[in-house]
Amino acid sequence: MLRLGPFAAARCLPAGPRLGPLCLAGNRGSFARSWLPVGDRGPLSRQVRAAAGGERPPVLKTPKGTRDHAPAQAALRERLLSAVVSCFKRHGAAAIDTPVLELRETLVGKYGEGAKLIYELKDQGGELLALRYDLTVPFARYLAMNKITKMKRYHVAKVYRRDNPATTRGRYREFYQCDFDIAGQFDPMIPDAECLKIVHEILSDLQLGDFVIKVNDRRILNGVFAVCGVPESQFIPACCTVDKLDKVPWEEVRSEMVAEKGLSPEAADRIGEYVQLHGGLDLIEQLLQDPKLSQNKVAKEGLGDMKLLFEYLTLFGITGKISFDLSLARGLDYYTGVIFEAVLLQQDNKHLEEPLSIGSVAGGGRYDGLVGMFDAKGRKVPCVGVSIGIERIFSILEQRLEASGEKLRTTETQVLVATPQKHLLAARMKLISELWDAGIKAEMLYKKDPKLLKQLQYCEDTGIPLAAIVGEQELADGVVKLRDVATRKEVDIPREKLIDEIRRRLEP
Amino acid sequence: MLRLGPFAAARCLPAGPRLGPLCLAGNRGSFARSWLPVGDRGPLSRQVRAAAGGERPPVLKTPKGTRDHAPAQAALRERLLSAVVSCFKRHGAAAIDTPVLELRETLVGKYGEGAKLIYELKDQGGELLALRYDLTVPFARYLAMNKITKMKRYHVAKVYRRDNPATTRGRYREFYQCDFDIAGQFDPMIPDAECLKIVHEILSDLQLGDFVIKVNDRRILNGVFAVCGVPESQFIPACCTVDKLDKVPWEEVRSEMVAEKGLSPEAADRIGEYVQLHGGLDLIEQLLQDPKLSQNKVAKEGLGDMKLLFEYLTLFGITGKISFDLSLARGLDYYTGVIFEAVLLQQDNKHLEEPLSIGSVAGGGRYDGLVGMFDAKGRKVPCVGVSIGIERIFSILEQRLEASGEKLRTTETQVLVATPQKHLLAARMKLISELWDAGIKAEMLYKKDPKLLKQLQYCEDTGIPLAAIVGEQELADGVVKLRDVATRKEVDIPREKLIDEIRRRLEP
Repeated sequence: MLRLGPFAAARCLPAGPRLGPLCLAGNRGSFARSWLPVGDRGPLSRQVRAAAGGERPPVLKTPKGTRDHAPAQAALRERLLSAVVSCFKRHGAAAIDTPVLELRETLVGKYGEGAKLIYELKDQGGELLALRYDLTVPFARYLAMNKITKMKRYHVAKVYRRDNPATTRGRYREFYQCDFDIAGQFDPMIPDAECLKIVHEILSDLQLGDFVIKVNDRRILNGVFAVCGVPESQFIPACCTVDKLDKVPWEEVRSEMVAEKGLSPEAADRIGEYVQLHGGLDLIEQLLQDPKLSQNKVAKEGLGDMKLLFEYLTLFGITGKISFDLSLARGLDYYTGVIFEAVLLQQDNKHLEEPLSIGSVAGGGRYDGLVGMFDAKGRKVPCVGVSIGIERIFSILEQRLEASGEKLRTTETQVLVATPQKHLLAARMKLISELWDAGIKAEMLYKKDPKLLKQLQYCEDTGIPLAAIVGEQELADGVVKLRDVATRKEVDIPREKLIDEIRRRLEP
Repeated sequence: MLRLGPFAAARCLPAGPRLGPLCLAGNRGSFARSWLPVGDRGPLSRQVRAAAGGERPPVLKTPKGTRDHAPAQAALRERLLSAVVSCFKRHGAAAIDTPVLELRETLVGKYGEGAKLIYELKDQGGELLALRYDLTVPFARYLAMNKITKMKRYHVAKVYRRDNPATTRGRYREFYQCDFDIAGQFDPMIPDAECLKIVHEILSDLQLGDFVIKVNDRRILNGVFAVCGVPESQFIPACCTVDKLDKVPWEEVRSEMVAEKGLSPEAADRIGEYVQLHGGLDLIEQLLQDPKLSQNKVAKEGLGDMKLLFEYLTLFGITGKISFDLSLARGLDYYTGVIFEAVLLQQDNKHLEEPLSIGSVAGGGRYDGLVGMFDAKGRKVPCVGVSIGIERIFSILEQRLEASGEKLRTTETQVLVATPQKHLLAARMKLISELWDAGIKAEMLYKKDPKLLKQLQYCEDTGIPLAAIVGEQELADGVVKLRDVATRKEVDIPREKLIDEIRRRLEP
């Protein structure tokens, strides 16, 4: 697949290079440099001593629900994000960025029950702040603030939720969101269809296995609630309850509706008949003929648009993975039209020790009212967007990589500059400087007189393909010995031709 | 310069494309879609009404000292960061990532006076958290936590300081740091010299104008303080005072030393004789002969290493931009050896309405004690690193771009799929879908029947080079009309050859 580029390349890498190129076990005993500074006896070192003396052991952890990325993870993530971003760019989106911090006020009243998960900052004087909870509300704030009425943008950044972490399933308190949104007044369902096409492309590109994209519409759901006799004020709570249908059976959802949300048992039963339906165009046609639903104006609009959406998805050739599913409700308050969610289907996991965790890996929908909440005159900007659940995908790829035993290179170094004898540090430094200035990725060991074997071993450990060796003989002859690390073949190259030769060898 | 790649390309772009490709002024009156959902009359829309009714106007701003990045800024930043990262990769660094949140405890006692600028989170139960203040302390925490004793890493991420913002000079409360650090026990000054080479490469690549990299050593400063009769406990406060010498004259620094730091006037005068010196190898030799300083063990070590550093910098060919400057002190507590700071030199600004703000654009140094602060046994890992002051550089480039009147493209779209007649939406959708699946970056307008002129205008506005036009005739003939937007030349291409032809045209 042409468009996958960097990510596909990752998977084709030969096994071999170590995870952390420089994280070799060092000689921990020999750290005391002879020139340890006087400053070290000042206030800073008192704390060192305090720590060393065990007065209070330093706490060594990241906050609950967060994690560091070691080089191998950072490299995997870079490739994953770049595959997602290149899809967003393929669809003509521009990037924006917004601060991690927002005024508390900006976030209030946008997330329903999610609000209790917002991280708030301490009042240290000045404005009351919070960490962003998603990228959608900041996007709406950005549009309203700049009076923008048309925009196609992507935003890849971290968001924060004081949720119960489930780190093995990729649920963290700090996590990346990868959002693509289209704002503006356009002809119905054209941007909505493109969002679904994007989900389809990304999940196909990443080769995560079989998946299905469930689609529904808040208007259809609201119509269902209306014709089942639910009062309008109960629509959003009813939505949240229905949303649990992918995790718990209908009986449980039904009893929550009756016991907690105060719906009548009859209303709940009527709802149950609808929300357990799923299918394709057939089902849309069937519901358009439904004696009750077809009488509801909003449901009819939703169903009409759903039919149009399926028409467009047919043109995009992706209906094979789309399911019109009336149980899909999505938790967030702000959706107003089409909603969707992509789930990976359970694979045959017999060969893996632990089955991979499977679940929702992308979601989104239409939110036509959110921007208006930020406008003094309530002027609306219709929006539709998709968010890729990158953490769950990352977890899956990480587990898969681990299971395969493959290692990713964590650096891109092309040449190691090496010397076979002592007293040649100056020669190495001169040569590496020339390579850097020519744009070649080069390293040398930070030792005055490293052994040649150690230098070559470093190439093998970290996957460096070439070694440029300068010894006394090479210096005298005005050449550099260029070694292919894999084949161990060495050739003398005249110094002035070295850079061209390296470039030639590194051509794909 | 070969290695600059994406950034150089930015500067070579022809003027023309608009800043915000889709931020065209829309028809704000027509936002009310006929299918406005029922849900919109629920709790969410009550808030809209509240806002609309003016009960409380929504606050539309980002927190003090923070800002959004519009597409043009995001594109400029992406290019700038990619130039910096490609230099870090050229030097063989691996990426890591750490959370924006750290335990408060992790940050305590590492920043001296800076500590009061740390953003703390509200106690919402659980751990006490703060936003990271820099990337160096999290790096040290990471090394200690994972018992890593050798590592060359880069980290590009946002950090947070409750500082007084000076946004025109690029000083924000949320800002990017771009750090490259080398941890490990190596032969003296080899990694330190590489850090300086990196600063030199980045500032040269970015063509920011003339610059100088000031170098000093905390050990030399401490030796100076010692021989001038300053008690050891006053070294760090004295350092902080000396550090102001780049902004205020010596007389002011002197009086702060005497009035606020409690130094004797004689000691201050003796310090003044040293810290106003700057030069190169000559000055190092002179100080090595200095009757007082040469008797101080720590100063002598610092001077010896400084001489070695200059030797290595000569091999790298960069001493022309290096100044050994005894006034350089750097504010942070954790430095223990070499310190450095790069400053841009004042340009001739006659042609600009407002002179560009000039100042420090990179800094760093050696911190051999920091990792040990996180180790229960105080085991040290020597480190040296550099941080590129990307915000200041970004401000300069932004002002320069503005002054030039040039526009950056904010999207990468290669082809607009267009139709010249009505009722051809299906044809456009089919064709664009084929292009996307072939990895071609393509857009279409989200209208059922857009005018051809509007479609072509969109290409010109956003810099799309090609238009693929399907009309009734083209459909009948099995061809697509491929239009070069710049030359307006159109050629009919057989449908099955279209993708190859587009690829051929887009080759660099």
